Amino acid sequence: MAPIRLGMVGGGAGAFIGAVHRIAARLDGDYELVAGALASTPDRAKASGEILGLDPARCYGSFEEMAEAEAARADGIEAVSIVTPNHMHAAPAIAFLKRGIHVLCDKPLAATMEDAEALAAAARESRAQFILTHNYTGYPMVRQARAMVTAGDLGDIRVVHVSYLQDWLTTSVESTGVKQAEWRTDPARSGAGGAVGDIGTHAHNLACFVTGLSVERLAADLQSFGPGRALDNSANVLLRFAGGARGTLTCSQVAAGKENALTLSVHGSRGGLEWAQEEPNVLWFTPYGQPVQRLTRMGAGANEAANAVSRIPSGHPEGYLEGFANIYAAAAAAIRKGEPDPDLPGIEAGLSGMRFIAACVASSQQDAAWVGPV
Amino acid sequence: MAPIRLGMVGGGAGAFIGAVHRIAARLDGDYELVAGALASTPDRAKASGEILGLDPARCYGSFEEMAEAEAARADGIEAVSIVTPNHMHAAPAIAFLKRGIHVLCDKPLAATMEDAEALAAAARESRAQFILTHNYTGYPMVRQARAMVTAGDLGDIRVVHVSYLQDWLTTSVESTGVKQAEWRTDPARSGAGGAVGDIGTHAHNLACFVTGLSVERLAADLQSFGPGRALDNSANVLLRFAGGARGTLTCSQVAAGKENALTLSVHGSRGGLEWAQEEPNVLWFTPYGQPVQRLTRMGAGANEAANAVSRIPSGHPEGYLEGFANIYAAAAAAIRKGEPDPDLPGIEAGLSGMRFIAACVASSQQDAAWVGPV
Amino acid sequence: MAPIRLGMVGGGAGAFIGAVHRIAARLDGDYELVAGALASTPDRAKASGEILGLDPARCYGSFEEMAEAEAARADGIEAVSIVTPNHMHAAPAIAFLKRGIHVLCDKPLAATMEDAEALAAAARESRAQFILTHNYTGYPMVRQARAMVTAGDLGDIRVVHVSYLQDWLTTSVESTGVKQAEWRTDPARSGAGGAVGDIGTHAHNLACFVTGLSVERLAADLQSFGPGRALDNSANVLLRFAGGARGTLTCSQVAAGKENALTLSVHGSRGGLEWAQEEPNVLWFTPYGQPVQRLTRMGAGANEAANAVSRIPSGHPEGYLEGFANIYAAAAAAIRKGEPDPDLPGIEAGLSGMRFIAACVASSQQDAAWVGPV
Amino acid sequence: MAPIRLGMVGGGAGAFIGAVHRIAARLDGDYELVAGALASTPDRAKASGEILGLDPARCYGSFEEMAEAEAARADGIEAVSIVTPNHMHAAPAIAFLKRGIHVLCDKPLAATMEDAEALAAAARESRAQFILTHNYTGYPMVRQARAMVTAGDLGDIRVVHVSYLQDWLTTSVESTGVKQAEWRTDPARSGAGGAVGDIGTHAHNLACFVTGLSVERLAADLQSFGPGRALDNSANVLLRFAGGARGTLTCSQVAAGKENALTLSVHGSRGGLEWAQEEPNVLWFTPYGQPVQRLTRMGAGANEAANAVSRIPSGHPEGYLEGFANIYAAAAAAIRKGEPDPDLPGIEAGLSGMRFIAACVASSQQDAAWVGPV
Repeated sequence: MAPIRLGMVGGGAGAFIGAVHRIAARLDGDYELVAGALASTPDRAKASGEILGLDPARCYGSFEEMAEAEAARADGIEAVSIVTPNHMHAAPAIAFLKRGIHVLCDKPLAATMEDAEALAAAARESRAQFILTHNYTGYPMVRQARAMVTAGDLGDIRVVHVSYLQDWLTTSVESTGVKQAEWRTDPARSGAGGAVGDIGTHAHNLACFVTGLSVERLAADLQSFGPGRALDNSANVLLRFAGGARGTLTCSQVAAGKENALTLSVHGSRGGLEWAQEEPNVLWFTPYGQPVQRLTRMGAGANEAANAVSRIPSGHPEGYLEGFANIYAAAAAAIRKGEPDPDLPGIEAGLSGMRFIAACVASSQQDAAWVGPV
Repeated sequence: MAPIRLGMVGGGAGAFIGAVHRIAARLDGDYELVAGALASTPDRAKASGEILGLDPARCYGSFEEMAEAEAARADGIEAVSIVTPNHMHAAPAIAFLKRGIHVLCDKPLAATMEDAEALAAAARESRAQFILTHNYTGYPMVRQARAMVTAGDLGDIRVVHVSYLQDWLTTSVESTGVKQAEWRTDPARSGAGGAVGDIGTHAHNLACFVTGLSVERLAADLQSFGPGRALDNSANVLLRFAGGARGTLTCSQVAAGKENALTLSVHGSRGGLEWAQEEPNVLWFTPYGQPVQRLTRMGAGANEAANAVSRIPSGHPEGYLEGFANIYAAAAAAIRKGEPDPDLPGIEAGLSGMRFIAACVASSQQDAAWVGPV
Repeated sequence: MAPIRLGMVGGGAGAFIGAVHRIAARLDGDYELVAGALASTPDRAKASGEILGLDPARCYGSFEEMAEAEAARADGIEAVSIVTPNHMHAAPAIAFLKRGIHVLCDKPLAATMEDAEALAAAARESRAQFILTHNYTGYPMVRQARAMVTAGDLGDIRVVHVSYLQDWLTTSVESTGVKQAEWRTDPARSGAGGAVGDIGTHAHNLACFVTGLSVERLAADLQSFGPGRALDNSANVLLRFAGGARGTLTCSQVAAGKENALTLSVHGSRGGLEWAQEEPNVLWFTPYGQPVQRLTRMGAGANEAANAVSRIPSGHPEGYLEGFANIYAAAAAAIRKGEPDPDLPGIEAGLSGMRFIAACVASSQQDAAWVGPV
Repeated sequence: MAPIRLGMVGGGAGAFIGAVHRIAARLDGDYELVAGALASTPDRAKASGEILGLDPARCYGSFEEMAEAEAARADGIEAVSIVTPNHMHAAPAIAFLKRGIHVLCDKPLAATMEDAEALAAAARESRAQFILTHNYTGYPMVRQARAMVTAGDLGDIRVVHVSYLQDWLTTSVESTGVKQAEWRTDPARSGAGGAVGDIGTHAHNLACFVTGLSVERLAADLQSFGPGRALDNSANVLLRFAGGARGTLTCSQVAAGKENALTLSVHGSRGGLEWAQEEPNVLWFTPYGQPVQRLTRMGAGANEAANAVSRIPSGHPEGYLEGFANIYAAAAAAIRKGEPDPDLPGIEAGLSGMRFIAACVASSQQDAAWVGPV
């Protein structure tokens, strides 16, 4: 099958997440990167494009120019990856969706609810698909967990704890020229949520994806540690799910000792599950009253949902890039098939994430009052 | 040194925690059990005493009788362990304290705040010491953690997560004759808190013991899962500590897959610590900006606070009973020295635990309003 | 039941293993230490006895004196613990066995095969019991493993790997006044085996205890690292078991980074087991073709063999001292019953251990030729 | 930079390792697969090529045809991946090397020593490079370990244990149509070594790569478990390294409970290292006398050697495919630069692996006599 012609907005030299998207797109051979608006000035955009081997004619200085030019080409891009800071998601996404170009967009959906809603409207009107790269849902054992909950292996869900802890903002790196830290601590570019927007949305999405539940109400206590910071970098949130389950969501970027510790545990009337992103090939399952089982990707206890997104045998660890690539591969399949994949996060998941951020901020401003639904 | 003559109230045949206290008392040779009011009828009390090899003349049918008789003997007990259900802590403790007999009492302090305060008054007036067996504070690596926080190894404490998850109430075992489950799910015997009283108090105590901080305010969401249950068996609590640290406390007795999962993580401006009760000989320490260190009991990174309560070399695991025995050993030393040990939980820790339970219940009744200080 | 009157040979102030034996004897209340020949001079023996609260009249300057005097008392010791260096096991053991006093003796059996055989002869002739404290067999999950192999859960045993790695001899501590290191690196006191005698025997015993197999032939490569050392401190051994299983035994006291890493894995035609002494409450079991199970002491998958030697619920870690105490408790039961417990290591296990040491040394001297049976 | 034009021999539909090589080649965008002799009949070769989107004109029915045709094209392949069973490595490799086409070849080098030597001669004469995909050396933390040993962080190496355990041959899957099992248990296609050739060579290579040491002598005990098997599926090997270090190598394909458990531990006079392939982002380091450190890929303790082959931040797990891709990326760099990369396994590592297999087989036939050097 011919690869899908892909463009990219953002992700110029030095940007972490752009490189990740490119590897994810490349890993299974489903895409060919052929155009980009990789940086915010024409010169830097071209320079970044050259490093990636792009045709200079298709290295654009702005997403508007790119959208217009590519839509006009017979061999124009069929899909575009948007990997800019949050405040720069909506406008390009809308521009491409309007032209029938599929969009793979980094999360969260936008920096403001207004932008998010405009983007949602564009997505609903477009004949093109919109995929939000909540990449952690691409991990095989996350897919397995979701399928097990659906199959009733846990019974009624009672208790859900999800946590996403990092420590890279322990010190004031945003003042030392670290680009990642600069925009992620800046409300103008990140939106109203700091940690809750950057990583809390992943945690929220993961908990909902696996349990199939939505958050009815939440009570959030946001805090910013370190001098002169405008956005939360730590949040503790009580969760009440539709259907009666209770839980917590905690996230922090100042949890010294934690690298990228996204963990989920789900406990029901018949069993429990635990998963940790840093050991992604393993899912711990307890059928209540029996020993804990160590389920492994492609191992004896792996189910079809996990196997469908696995490439190599058990004991051969797949990682973050493969999980990310699963989003890209499923998007390619959905684009080719012409209909959305229900396992892929899209505009609704994105809006839910935006409501989550807004609810956390609003709740915290009211001293952790209950807010919802999300 | 001659062992301390010890009595026991409660802990007759079949009771889990009575056996634990007896082993803890025996392990270092500091006590000799010589009397007991082990059960609530004279016959069963004598029968239990016989199994333990007690002099039948010192097997009493009630704690009142025992307190009176033992106080009158020249060779009467010097200390007593109280291992009854919560609602039966205060009265015997008071009876022995009044007679100058040292008390080692199971937690929580009492079933009601009134009882707790009466007991506190008795303790303050007594020449005898009162020790609350918050046994998890006896683990060497918990002592190490506390000393490291005190020494400033973590800098300013920012984020504290403590969690205590079990699953033994996942099904309705209280209806099947399991004594432990019967009284622990009964408000008349347990008090107003279910999980928050039984295990939440341990979690609260552990977090405060290690960080040296107190909880200024908390917002609690308590829930009871399973049919016909009067007490909470799951709780999610937001914590605000004096001095500005934020955190969560979660506890559950219906977390399928969890045995006795008490875990603590503490993150500060200079480093982080993590500890898990089920792997008690290890403390994970991250001096921020350096690799995570695996500190082990009596290992290369163990400090004096840990070594002082360790018996055997690194790599030779000590466990729950040794941690419990450390409370007994320190109590023996304090009794012999005639002055309380500041590292031992006493009446103030007990009152704080009672305030914690009351605050959780009150907060939850007000839909997780902030309550405090604790 | 009245405790068994116990004496001790060796184990004076500062000796690690003496203290361990005393705690093990005390933990379940089955013994009362009443006499000792704790050190090799009368003065130090008395001083050590005083610390332990022994009657000065029963603090002896030599084991001969003690054996004679105690045998003559109506209330003389019924059992004795021998916790001296290896070369001082046989003589006292024989002296007590001859007088009908039960012996609990530290491993290995002796420093020489001649001593071992003399001791074996005495044990066979005595009406008293002889127990060798191969304490690792006392761990509940080791008992569980043995019972599972016996029950056929693993099918035919094929591959056995046992390893015991420490690092305390990485540097020349024997020259710095560390008593443990002094005698354990001295052939006159340790015997012909260094690491193979001190820890290799534990590994050999554990593998045989769990699998029920004996070593038919072995090929050993012994080595001494560090200057001026007379005894091996590292050994790599190929094993061929009766019945066809193959395996390795490795041990080292210079494996930098290892504290007390005794590990065993057993693989059969139907399943596999793994156990690690530093995480003793867990046994990993794979019924072939199914997920790995995490079996825990007193947990859902624990069997009767494990439960019979457990004191407290799952999730409440038991450790080294409890495992050691299980040997003492079983010995007490066997002494009271008047017949040996087949699960307790005795003289035959001890002789096998001596043959193991001798075979390792002989094989290594012949450049790792096959030697056996063991 | 334009991608390197790549061909592939073997790796048709359904072959595990062919897919791995293709992903590895694609992941960093350094190669474009343009030709293949993917299967042993022209029809199946074309069918496999079609699935991969190859030009039908460049889907060849034999490697000879492919070598000739591609060498004749101006846009012919610059490099070729050889992913056939072992007995089919040498002939195609020689054919391409002779034509100056770079070869990336799966391990082991060949099925026989004769083939290996012919291939080595061809490699030495060729202007093209030869890379053996000992992929485990591509893991960042393996690179880190090697650099740490070189830097002297471990002092003099004393003890090395390497182990590679799997369980996929526990039952007789080779009789059930599993292609992988068929050829790997067939001496005609695998060569004289079974487990020692398939996975033992990886273990041997890893130990030598990290320590920088070569095996001077080995004593091997090979065994075949299960009915009717011609090749070893379990091996236990004593190792003596040049310079005095001692060790063991164990491998098995019948170790029930093990998926792909390649582990290495190295202990020296100043410190120790441990690494496990199933948790590849972590390296455990003990500077002797200090706590164990958990070094993570791109984490605080990562060195330049590791960072140079890492793509994404710490806590974002990289896996098997990224490690494999590191071999391909380094090969691309070496090809472009025109000179071999000393960190890449080549013909010498391949010959050493063949000597290792031959030595294991010879030693075992002589009842584990010492054989070497390897």
